[in-house]
Amino acid sequence: MYDLIIIGGGPAGITAGIYALRKKLKTLIITKDFIGQTGTTGVVENWPGEKSIGGIYLMEKFKNHLQFYNPEVKEERALFIEKNEKKFLVKTKNEKIFTRAVIVATGRKPKKLDVLGEEDFTGKGVSYCTTCDAPLFSGKKVVVFGGGNAGFEAAIELSEYAREVFLFESFSRFSADEFLQEKAKKKKVKTEKNILLKSIKGKSFVESVVYENSISKKEEEKDVEGVFVQIGSRAITECVKNLVEFDTEGDIKIDLKTNKTKTEGLFAAGDVTEVKDKQIVVAAGEGAKAALSVYSYLKK
Amino acid sequence: MYDLIIIGGGPAGITAGIYALRKKLKTLIITKDFIGQTGTTGVVENWPGEKSIGGIYLMEKFKNHLQFYNPEVKEERALFIEKNEKKFLVKTKNEKIFTRAVIVATGRKPKKLDVLGEEDFTGKGVSYCTTCDAPLFSGKKVVVFGGGNAGFEAAIELSEYAREVFLFESFSRFSADEFLQEKAKKKKVKTEKNILLKSIKGKSFVESVVYENSISKKEEEKDVEGVFVQIGSRAITECVKNLVEFDTEGDIKIDLKTNKTKTEGLFAAGDVTEVKDKQIVVAAGEGAKAALSVYSYLKK
Repeated sequence: MYDLIIIGGGPAGITAGIYALRKKLKTLIITKDFIGQTGTTGVVENWPGEKSIGGIYLMEKFKNHLQFYNPEVKEERALFIEKNEKKFLVKTKNEKIFTRAVIVATGRKPKKLDVLGEEDFTGKGVSYCTTCDAPLFSGKKVVVFGGGNAGFEAAIELSEYAREVFLFESFSRFSADEFLQEKAKKKKVKTEKNILLKSIKGKSFVESVVYENSISKKEEEKDVEGVFVQIGSRAITECVKNLVEFDTEGDIKIDLKTNKTKTEGLFAAGDVTEVKDKQIVVAAGEGAKAALSVYSYLKK
Repeated sequence: MYDLIIIGGGPAGITAGIYALRKKLKTLIITKDFIGQTGTTGVVENWPGEKSIGGIYLMEKFKNHLQFYNPEVKEERALFIEKNEKKFLVKTKNEKIFTRAVIVATGRKPKKLDVLGEEDFTGKGVSYCTTCDAPLFSGKKVVVFGGGNAGFEAAIELSEYAREVFLFESFSRFSADEFLQEKAKKKKVKTEKNILLKSIKGKSFVESVVYENSISKKEEEKDVEGVFVQIGSRAITECVKNLVEFDTEGDIKIDLKTNKTKTEGLFAAGDVTEVKDKQIVVAAGEGAKAALSVYSYLKK
């Protein structure tokens, strides 16, 4: 039986792991990889101490730090968690594993646009991961949906490859950092607000997008070969849905001081929780907090 | 008039600065230095991504990152903050500066033992900063007070210099990470629990400590030339004491989601707040949260 199973290998899960192993808790980390959302981010500029670092390299640094403490890791998915008197049973595809405490640090996955053509063209011009797919669009015309940091970062990254980059936002303002907005302007990204996407069209690959300006009500069609969706994300909570409470966004409610969920012994940390700012450094801090709370909980 | 004044140059203040400057807020940082508690820590092993880094070097990395955004910095103390209708007035020794919002990230300072001799021998054998003073005790006998992480880290560091290192704890158990306790054992640190310090004695420098075992009630005197005090810390809150509420520990109460204090426009982040875990990565995360909350607040 483990003291602690950490589910997730992003900044929150890894930091929780480092803290738990330093406290000598018998810890298992279950994660399909150590990539997460950070690892698919092109460049990270707001992890303190690193002016500019590739997301995948930052994850590599985190992972190397964790591995220094010889963690036990299962590279697979946690499918379901059950509480059984004072212990938890975590089910993966092939195993049932017992533990005294759990930290859920499963993070988030991208939200979909929910428009005609999106599903059909996923992987055929529609992408949710700029770092993964940007190089495939060299010399092509692409559109990014989403005017937050993620959207602008994607547009900037794409401008290194694509012939022309558009950035569309459905609301009347961009929420991205001014710093990123200026950078996008320098890279000649063409931005438009108040855009309502109607459909993604093509034969075997994306050829165009149809959209309406929500102010003028004018419908237009633009030829593009790539559609990058950056409109936010939702918490990955399937494995614990019976054990936790959710806020209106579908994020796990926690005691903000201790990272406790409503189930005793089950803690949550990082982007999967109601903590408002989905930032790498915030998630890492929450991972540390959760591990220290587990330690206090187990010592009682 | 500034959008934001950040008071403090530790991990919380610097991270808040990076986030605020990326958001193009007109920001001033007031801090007497960029050292803080982290900069006086010998080795940091739990900042994610750095297996082992000198505290002063980690602070250097943070500071370099901040400086990339050309921050305005005043290297002095904020003495007093007043709210005046919708703006704040921050007083330093020579200036009065106006701002729309404030983040207090002043951190903590070491607690004292409050025993006879402590004040007289401060700087004459009594020290609160191992990194600063350990080399002065080469070949000498020293005692560390405090069985938490800070105490054990101090003892380990001192064992590189001193002839003999004792670690005394007043409670019946050590709260330090098991990892550190084992490391101290390997370094031949001699630990004792249930120790009640009575006095520090000497002529011009420390010569001995007098203490009682709180179980056996036996009083003893041990010859030592150095006394390192590592029994925790208290929040530095003088400049805002009229504008915030405190918890029973004297830490600033905040809304844990937004870092708001009871005064509108005044935010707090890091070790100065009621956030339980006084950890570098937690403080940095809180700094990011506070800056993002200030940004939302100012945009309204």
